[in-house]
Amino acid sequence: MTLHAPYDDANIFAKMLRYEVPFIRVFEDDVALAFMDVFPQSEGHTLVIPKKEVDYIFDLDEKSLSGLMIFAQKVARKIEAAIDCKRVGVLVIGTEVPHAHIHLIPFQEESQMNIAAEKLKLPQEELAAIATQIRSKK
Amino acid sequence: MTLHAPYDDANIFAKMLRYEVPFIRVFEDDVALAFMDVFPQSEGHTLVIPKKEVDYIFDLDEKSLSGLMIFAQKVARKIEAAIDCKRVGVLVIGTEVPHAHIHLIPFQEESQMNIAAEKLKLPQEELAAIATQIRSKK
Repeated sequence: MTLHAPYDDANIFAKMLRYEVPFIRVFEDDVALAFMDVFPQSEGHTLVIPKKEVDYIFDLDEKSLSGLMIFAQKVARKIEAAIDCKRVGVLVIGTEVPHAHIHLIPFQEESQMNIAAEKLKLPQEELAAIATQIRSKK
Repeated sequence: MTLHAPYDDANIFAKMLRYEVPFIRVFEDDVALAFMDVFPQSEGHTLVIPKKEVDYIFDLDEKSLSGLMIFAQKVARKIEAAIDCKRVGVLVIGTEVPHAHIHLIPFQEESQMNIAAEKLKLPQEELAAIATQIRSKK
């Protein structure tokens, strides 16, 4: 894994990129990492983050932004193949953690895209099983 | 303007791309168009659409997806420069109109990113004035 350090120590996503905290990995390449959101808005809700340290997604240089979106597209296709959904929605707010992150949310109803909606409570084992399903798809 | 026809006649965004219906243009280039959302979630809420006819954003080829995001980044920077906001959020749901579209929503509060929230009611003249402000920024 290529790291584009230095990372902020108070940044949970940066810690994940250094494997200092546990997370449920879905898929990664040199530029980005996808993992399960532990407070999912729907089954299959996945977070995509760049390995480059940047807080705000639109502060990425053009090449990194393109790479991140193409990675997100690959992950979205895997999610669609694994999860029964209308399509995969995209949400970027980014104020919770100071590292750019894209929410990929497979939805049946638009209300599942509402960040204020109540989250699902899924046990870690179930999240891990969903990640395995997503990862296994082309 | 380069069109990547044929467009669906029942598709309001396709009609906009053919200038068959009025809209408040913010900015455009050969690959994408930005215009004011007439049901804004915040002042400055802008829609970005590819000129290529595609319903689902992740069905775009990699080059078109990259081009669309780099265009969206340019528009987001103009919005930030024009509108008092924490940052510009990104939302893609896409079930309302069968042409891919990215919501760029300048927000002060996360709740403004909630698609179910009540919309602002701004007169056309005010939307046009906001568009002019956004367009004028670098």
